[in-house]
Amino acid sequence: MEFDALFTAQLDTLKADGNYRIFAELERDCGAFPAARCHDDDAPDRVTVWCSNDYLGMGQHPDVIARMTEVVQQCGTGAGGTRNISGTNHHHVQLEAELADLHGKDSALLFTSGYVSNWAALGTLGARLPDCVILSDALNHASMIEGIRHSRAQKVIWKHNDPEDLDRKLAALPANAPKIVAFESVYSMDGDICPMAEIVEVAEKHGAMTYLDEVHAVGLYGPRGGGISEELGLADRITLIEGTLGKAYGCMGGYITGSHALCDFIRSFSSGFIFTTALPPAVAAAAQVSIAHLKNSDAERQQQRAQVARLRHLLDRQGIPHLDNPSHIIPVMIKDPVKCRMLADILMKDWGIYVQPINYPTVPKGTERLRFTPGPLHSDADIDHLVDALTVLWKQCALAHAVA
Amino acid sequence: MEFDALFTAQLDTLKADGNYRIFAELERDCGAFPAARCHDDDAPDRVTVWCSNDYLGMGQHPDVIARMTEVVQQCGTGAGGTRNISGTNHHHVQLEAELADLHGKDSALLFTSGYVSNWAALGTLGARLPDCVILSDALNHASMIEGIRHSRAQKVIWKHNDPEDLDRKLAALPANAPKIVAFESVYSMDGDICPMAEIVEVAEKHGAMTYLDEVHAVGLYGPRGGGISEELGLADRITLIEGTLGKAYGCMGGYITGSHALCDFIRSFSSGFIFTTALPPAVAAAAQVSIAHLKNSDAERQQQRAQVARLRHLLDRQGIPHLDNPSHIIPVMIKDPVKCRMLADILMKDWGIYVQPINYPTVPKGTERLRFTPGPLHSDADIDHLVDALTVLWKQCALAHAVA
Ligand SMILES: Cc1ncc(COP(=O)(O)O)c(C=O)c1O
Ligand SMILES: Cc1ncc(COP(=O)(O)O)c(C=O)c1O
Repeated sequence: MEFDALFTAQLDTLKADGNYRIFAELERDCGAFPAARCHDDDAPDRVTVWCSNDYLGMGQHPDVIARMTEVVQQCGTGAGGTRNISGTNHHHVQLEAELADLHGKDSALLFTSGYVSNWAALGTLGARLPDCVILSDALNHASMIEGIRHSRAQKVIWKHNDPEDLDRKLAALPANAPKIVAFESVYSMDGDICPMAEIVEVAEKHGAMTYLDEVHAVGLYGPRGGGISEELGLADRITLIEGTLGKAYGCMGGYITGSHALCDFIRSFSSGFIFTTALPPAVAAAAQVSIAHLKNSDAERQQQRAQVARLRHLLDRQGIPHLDNPSHIIPVMIKDPVKCRMLADILMKDWGIYVQPINYPTVPKGTERLRFTPGPLHSDADIDHLVDALTVLWKQCALAHAVA
Repeated sequence: MEFDALFTAQLDTLKADGNYRIFAELERDCGAFPAARCHDDDAPDRVTVWCSNDYLGMGQHPDVIARMTEVVQQCGTGAGGTRNISGTNHHHVQLEAELADLHGKDSALLFTSGYVSNWAALGTLGARLPDCVILSDALNHASMIEGIRHSRAQKVIWKHNDPEDLDRKLAALPANAPKIVAFESVYSMDGDICPMAEIVEVAEKHGAMTYLDEVHAVGLYGPRGGGISEELGLADRITLIEGTLGKAYGCMGGYITGSHALCDFIRSFSSGFIFTTALPPAVAAAAQVSIAHLKNSDAERQQQRAQVARLRHLLDRQGIPHLDNPSHIIPVMIKDPVKCRMLADILMKDWGIYVQPINYPTVPKGTERLRFTPGPLHSDADIDHLVDALTVLWKQCALAHAVA
């Protein structure tokens, strides 16, 4: 059988639709964030990164780097085993304690990524709780969708961020079936934030467990970086809080927090937790320092908010439309994959501005966008330069301006 | 609903069966491998690790550590994004080239772990090739099983390492359905090695694609560490070779290698590749150095083989039964989860020997075992000490001796 021909045919469709992805090849330059070297042929040697999810630049924080360096020297480069078979290191255990404390929970469990934590936790809960029904927000992340799919539990999709729809759908289910309400705090592509208090209320009314993905909020919201659930004082009413160490904390890894029984259950039964090499101890230790730092320091968050506000304000002044939302994410809608890629190419080539075009399957077709994530390390000059570039492009491309 | 009670009930069953897992809390001690600090209350402060999958001790190799340290300083602690959205670093691209070269393939694709590479690649192939049938060896790893399950493709299980059974099962399928034969080279729990030439022959006869997991073989077999497929000169007849950076290479991460179209296909369509933060550039760079080292150096492999042979020989002399196999893995069968845990506890407490009891679900119930992985860093004295301990325990516990 000619397998390559089968692969190529599907790739050709992607290409024809403008959805074929080309990755920018960067080399992050520690101390110079958000600037990075670029290895792409037709791009400048040095670019400013405008779409990183290392939202606060913690990946270059001297304490985080120092800790990773130190523990690489102490413990070596890898964990050497799965968590059960020689792979549990003191640094994993300490990080789990740090995470439980972050969300005010009894316990935490570390995974190799946020993707795996969602997939494995929802997959295990849905599969092992008899007659379980998972109620999933319509815009949940792929990792949650795949976990639910994997569990083969009954799945009910409720309207995005709509507690009334959730209420109706919960009411229609058998009273004694275990129910899990799965949702996110900050939705990463639109930057909107869920009505958490209302969702929690509805879930409690129906005796449902709440499963909250705070991946785009941890480190960024709440006085100690505990996310939107901390900011709103709702963490103790959420059954399970999931997060990542790969975005605001600048490292890699994922986790869940919750009751001791819950975490022990996932630890004991989840294939995606059990059958894989543990995170390098040095990565765990670095993440712990990053979390601890952001528990005590608000400076990064404040400076991020200032730069987010500045970019929004300047875009408004130039009439460049962007989605209105209360978060740190600024999506500029282009609504066409080919135009979106073209704009990103010009920004990169002519202006040294790197923003990845966001296309299907990350967002629905027809909602292609440039997604900017200003951080505390973007200078005012960086922002001015970006707005200048967009202003010129907006005129050249004759794209629709926002109505003032 | 009392969710904790549901969790606790299932955990209680595990405990009653002797299958509840307690992780040893270690602190690897760079420069002193295989010795490690132990943080468990009733264990000595210092133990010798006998069950690591850092098979060659590359996790403490000075060049690998130096490289990880260097790139942490250069690029920071994390990748800062998914591969598509600002997360592709020069070091990922270089590592992918190194991996393609390792297996003599056109292309390679990096994942966050070996687990994710199997799950994502099989999940995507099975789901996107219309009418695809996956023929899975009966003892395939959980990550492959879950990937196949996730794909919802038709699955046919063939008898472990039995090319004739595979042949019969392939013959029974429609000639024009795309077929994938999924198997491993070294099976990690029994340490047996597949009859690769025969399997490849059968697959070719039926026009099936071959999917080979070399997780427990890369770095260890073949003149350049390309695995059993390199050792046997069969790599160019395998469609897809999958491996890990977390075992013999001493780091973390997983990968697939194959044709350009195949890797581009998985890159473009696989949820588990697309929607997750990339590996830290420093981890990728360290893994690259480890791979490059083991392409050129055979010393680690030779010393490992000597120590494996030594342990086998001394166990035989003491009449301590162990599974006969041609690999570096020495399973000593206990066949009872409670006894297995008890023996491991005594080895740890009284002898400073750490070997994790291997129980369900890692192996079938009734096949519980102690699994030893001697490496080049285990001294002759380490081995003698282990054999002394096992000899004493064998007498004390009156376990059946092997028939000479
Ligand atoms: C909402 C959400 N959840 C989970 C993940 C996965 O986290 P990680 O990157 O740590 O795998 C992501 C993005 O990657 C995400 O956007
Ligand atoms: C055969 C096999 N494949 C894949 C994996 C997963 O690799 P990783 O530890 O890199 O996730 C493992 C063990 O962990 C394994 O034993």
